[in-house]
Amino acid sequence: MASLLSDTEIQERASQLSGWTVEGKELRCSLKFKDFIEAIDFVNKLVAPSEAAGHHPDIAISYNKVTVNLTTHDAGGLTEKDFALAREISALN
Amino acid sequence: MASLLSDTEIQERASQLSGWTVEGKELRCSLKFKDFIEAIDFVNKLVAPSEAAGHHPDIAISYNKVTVNLTTHDAGGLTEKDFALAREISALN
Repeated sequence: MASLLSDTEIQERASQLSGWTVEGKELRCSLKFKDFIEAIDFVNKLVAPSEAAGHHPDIAISYNKVTVNLTTHDAGGLTEKDFALAREISALN
Repeated sequence: MASLLSDTEIQERASQLSGWTVEGKELRCSLKFKDFIEAIDFVNKLVAPSEAAGHHPDIAISYNKVTVNLTTHDAGGLTEKDFALAREISALN
């Protein structure tokens, strides 16, 4: 199982990730697209990296806005898995 | 603009819709799928009816669970548009 990161480790990693914020035990990114279709297109792009990592973000879609939340539920907070997937997601857009 | 439905009209329409509940000013449906991929497949099926209706549900995805929320933002509550789209979404699954 992935180990929980310390607050210092979280801050270090978060400072290197543009567009993501740490919200409690989650890593969050909100993105705005042209319309609903482009928002859904982006959500579809999350499938391959999530499946490859065996790690799945929580996703909220509101018309052209997509919010991606990452946490490692079985560890009870943020782990390397969350930051690794966040970096991959950032590279998609 | 679509007109707000009265409480009586909402209850009448909701009683004819299986799997949806009225939560405040929203109509909500939660569905569980085999896995993340099937959940995303379902979300993709929402695109065509939403675009055709010019009305877009808020969608939350958590691994294999999809929650669909409908409301008519510019009317400030539930209208015929929400129930019409809810019926179409129910027919997809």
